[in-house]
Amino acid sequence: MRAAPSQEEVRRHNLGTLLRYVHLRGPTSRAELTSSMGLNRSTIGALTSDLIAAGLVTEEVPRDHGRAGRPSLVVRPRAERVYSYAFSLEVDRLVAARVGLGGVVLDRQEVARPRGQRAQQKVVAPFAEFVREVEKTVPDDALCVGCAAAVGAMVRQDDGSVKLCPTGEVDEPFTTAIAESLMATRGSTPPLAIRSGADLAALAEHARGVAAGCNNVIYLHGDAGVSGGVIAGGRPVTGHAGHAGEVGHMVVNPQGRPCGCGSQGCWETEIGEHALIRAAGRDGTGRAAVLTVVDAAARGDAMAQSALRHVGEWLGFGVANLVNIFNPEMVIFGGTLRDIYLSAAAQVRGKLAKMGLAALRDHVRLRTPSLGDDASLLGAADLAFERLLADPLDTAAG
Amino acid sequence: MRAAPSQEEVRRHNLGTLLRYVHLRGPTSRAELTSSMGLNRSTIGALTSDLIAAGLVTEEVPRDHGRAGRPSLVVRPRAERVYSYAFSLEVDRLVAARVGLGGVVLDRQEVARPRGQRAQQKVVAPFAEFVREVEKTVPDDALCVGCAAAVGAMVRQDDGSVKLCPTGEVDEPFTTAIAESLMATRGSTPPLAIRSGADLAALAEHARGVAAGCNNVIYLHGDAGVSGGVIAGGRPVTGHAGHAGEVGHMVVNPQGRPCGCGSQGCWETEIGEHALIRAAGRDGTGRAAVLTVVDAAARGDAMAQSALRHVGEWLGFGVANLVNIFNPEMVIFGGTLRDIYLSAAAQVRGKLAKMGLAALRDHVRLRTPSLGDDASLLGAADLAFERLLADPLDTAAG
Repeated sequence: MRAAPSQEEVRRHNLGTLLRYVHLRGPTSRAELTSSMGLNRSTIGALTSDLIAAGLVTEEVPRDHGRAGRPSLVVRPRAERVYSYAFSLEVDRLVAARVGLGGVVLDRQEVARPRGQRAQQKVVAPFAEFVREVEKTVPDDALCVGCAAAVGAMVRQDDGSVKLCPTGEVDEPFTTAIAESLMATRGSTPPLAIRSGADLAALAEHARGVAAGCNNVIYLHGDAGVSGGVIAGGRPVTGHAGHAGEVGHMVVNPQGRPCGCGSQGCWETEIGEHALIRAAGRDGTGRAAVLTVVDAAARGDAMAQSALRHVGEWLGFGVANLVNIFNPEMVIFGGTLRDIYLSAAAQVRGKLAKMGLAALRDHVRLRTPSLGDDASLLGAADLAFERLLADPLDTAAG
Repeated sequence: MRAAPSQEEVRRHNLGTLLRYVHLRGPTSRAELTSSMGLNRSTIGALTSDLIAAGLVTEEVPRDHGRAGRPSLVVRPRAERVYSYAFSLEVDRLVAARVGLGGVVLDRQEVARPRGQRAQQKVVAPFAEFVREVEKTVPDDALCVGCAAAVGAMVRQDDGSVKLCPTGEVDEPFTTAIAESLMATRGSTPPLAIRSGADLAALAEHARGVAAGCNNVIYLHGDAGVSGGVIAGGRPVTGHAGHAGEVGHMVVNPQGRPCGCGSQGCWETEIGEHALIRAAGRDGTGRAAVLTVVDAAARGDAMAQSALRHVGEWLGFGVANLVNIFNPEMVIFGGTLRDIYLSAAAQVRGKLAKMGLAALRDHVRLRTPSLGDDASLLGAADLAFERLLADPLDTAAG
């Protein structure tokens, strides 16, 4: 049940919708906003004026206006004034960025993360330091509206075993450290959200990447392990406790190798980086070692080619299962799975053709991320902007 | 963007919410409606009056009113006046029912369906005949608001192979035949909807069954094959073309038996009825043959016990995969999987404990359907009522 929303509630809802539009699509003319949003010109004008007054957008005459008549003003998100912090905690690197409204990366820092890193503070400290340094250069009138972190589903714990649900572990020191950095420089701390990297990459590719317009999407991320982010019916599938998408622990080979989770023959034991590197008869870990195999195969190394074909078949095997379960329009291969898919697309498609049901496999598109390796970082930034987009005036007022 | 909803739109929305409440929960006092819905007493009174005037509910003094003071009137859906038709097309039976508002089965007919039935019309004819016969007894002022059919995901085709997506096949003659029956007796035809039986069973158990209050649910149905209905975040996961939930074709055993779909080692080759009957060294098909194995095991037949343990382990294997993928609160075992689960719960739980990730397996509840074998039929009835519940006055008017 509901009471009738007030004019003020409707106005705030429409302000959020307009701001979200330019945040995701970039500078947009009033004419396009009017036709896309189904409101009249004077309402769009009034909403734009409110967002200008709140310091969230500007209006300008389009630069390339060559036609006769009065040009439609272009509404542009104020990327340099309104920003969020986005962090991505991955197996091999830490990425921190200050991202302006509209998804513009203003400042970005990436540091390598050694495998087997033990102390929690070593993960958090670079993020806090990044915020401290960057904040020195941010104009006083700039507005930080939120922080969010993408966390790799696989975090190596103190004992070297695989930590499957890292959120709980990093939440407390992470929040505290970032909050302290912001408090020291700005005197305020925006809320901090943490979500799985694969979930955030799926959201980003759905909102502004290769899956824009697709309502049923599976994003697969590979590194030491394999994790997934799923969009079904336009909404993320998060599960009861936020742990959905642990597709790396779908058992595909009951006679397979032991997995760090305690089970046996999990998908990631067949398609994780270690499976490829081992099959190619090599050593090493990480994306670099995977790319060494890919390069060797391209140069004609038979063992590397055979390894890629073998892992590609297992990749297709699991994809076929997920296609039968989710009936997606698109499957996106990120991280090391991007490299494996590009080198073994025939094997992936072959398995999908054999194991996928015809009605489900025929319209599924296999793709790589259009946002590259920063999909989860940009998804974190979008998550951090969510509060502003839900109620622009309230958030902008501080 | 949106314009402000009118008072009339808000009123219609609230009428639908109130009617849905009593449809799902049964007769409810005005006092409970007031406290549950967050509207004041006079608004609830006005909404109830509108629904009474439309012939959709009645109000009455509660029978067991023993306390002092004026009793709160009870709002009751008019099950005998407002009804839908629900059909369930299953591997071994056809079920047709006339279901009153509130989910009350008013008329019901079940006929056995021989395996390998060839002509499409033999499936449709009993449903049309049921409608024709039942309509003779329905009062003139009664209101048929919709028809819906639950269709088993596994339909044996003419050549005996498995038809995986039957909707297209039965849609046309089904709709036509039912429409002709209704047109002949009532002079009008309500819209007819068709959905997978497992999807509708999941919706029914979520709305009014064992999964009420759970937002992340997997319903598994077993017969000749295995199909699934998934609720994620309170919404059904249907996929791009409505084919999500084909969990029976998740491959669990790469060295397993050929499946009717053309693949090998699909989950249903390990847990479908034939897998159990074969493992028990018996013949026959259908629920009866499965129950023969269950009964033999209960009487101490070692081969039947071993078969149930074996199939129970494969059932747990696939459930663990789905738990890791969906992070559900509840998994429900319907059809023959109910019988197998009840006889091999230890094996199912054992596999889940071994293969499920701790953070995901620990809070998942394993259950059997509280709506029994009619879950999909009642889900179809709810689907048929959906148009009425979305806008009661418009639909009731005609």
